Amino acid sequence: MRKWWNMPKIVDHDARRRHIAEAVHRVIHDKGMESVSLREVAAEAGVSMGTVQYYVTTKDQMLLLALERLASWIGERVAAVAARQSTPLDVLRATVLELLPLDEERSYLNRIGLAFQASSMVSENQAAAMRAGYASLLSYLAGQIRAAQAAGQLAAHLDAGKEASILYAFAQGIVNATLVGHYTPEDVAALLDHQLARLVAGWTPDST
Amino acid sequence: MRKWWNMPKIVDHDARRRHIAEAVHRVIHDKGMESVSLREVAAEAGVSMGTVQYYVTTKDQMLLLALERLASWIGERVAAVAARQSTPLDVLRATVLELLPLDEERSYLNRIGLAFQASSMVSENQAAAMRAGYASLLSYLAGQIRAAQAAGQLAAHLDAGKEASILYAFAQGIVNATLVGHYTPEDVAALLDHQLARLVAGWTPDST
Repeated sequence: MRKWWNMPKIVDHDARRRHIAEAVHRVIHDKGMESVSLREVAAEAGVSMGTVQYYVTTKDQMLLLALERLASWIGERVAAVAARQSTPLDVLRATVLELLPLDEERSYLNRIGLAFQASSMVSENQAAAMRAGYASLLSYLAGQIRAAQAAGQLAAHLDAGKEASILYAFAQGIVNATLVGHYTPEDVAALLDHQLARLVAGWTPDST
Repeated sequence: MRKWWNMPKIVDHDARRRHIAEAVHRVIHDKGMESVSLREVAAEAGVSMGTVQYYVTTKDQMLLLALERLASWIGERVAAVAARQSTPLDVLRATVLELLPLDEERSYLNRIGLAFQASSMVSENQAAAMRAGYASLLSYLAGQIRAAQAAGQLAAHLDAGKEASILYAFAQGIVNATLVGHYTPEDVAALLDHQLARLVAGWTPDST
């Protein structure tokens, strides 16, 4: 009979890929994207280089794994926050707030996001992952806008796709200015609410 | 009498700093920020390492010089395009369009801008330069909005500072999605005009 301590280890590959991806995040965040290497990532993850290589062999693959994990992490956070809201307009607002660097964890995610915005300029694989992320998030936001229109919370004539694009560009474009300290979190929330207010049903320019 | 060929060279230090700064831009653009080094920059600029060191000695100084040149270059381009417009609203629209990656040269500037958005996360000197740039550009945009209000082109009740912040965040936030190909230049211009239309005097939700 095989002794229990010789039993093959049961490896949760998804958990291990996530663990490695999040080690890549920490290396990017603390040392910059140029520091991402097999050696650095293995050390940060506390595993052997061989273990990392089982999942990813090139730097481009490591970055892609980290980018996909970043996108699914943000997706999980948005889903969790959405589940706590009671109306489509609340979901819309909470989703955009979730994307903004308004506390330490969201700042961490956004600093890594800015690094990928830069590095997707020189990696077609990353650019493709970014396009997929934009399509998915924008379609989610547009869906919430349509639901809010159906519920009478947002003006019925709005073009949901355009409004989603403008809202999301606003959110992404205010990240750096907030992280370097030009805006406070309160400033950013007030700007978002200012933009949302003009989408609300029945709003006219004179009523703000 | 001193012979003319022994005359000390007259060096235009501003031109040479600009030349070096633009070599740093090309290194960042073509090889990434991690490739910026004395050796790379000197080779790209076609000057000796000693010449580069006369102006900047550390990588941080090289990046700061390049960031300041990027900001003044964008400032010069905005001033040139503004001078060709006839009304404050035209200036506002042309300024925002000038910041967007709608052709090869503006895409080049924006790819470098994205690299600095990322690297300003780990350099307080760069973050300070970014803050100064935001303050200056946002104050310019708010001034154009006020001028357009005074001219009756934009609704008088608008908060110029808030509208400038939202417009500029929109412009900055749509850069990556455009450069990776999620939006065409035409999409981006249409989104900008959609946002501007609702700031126009007398506009009401039903009139778009």
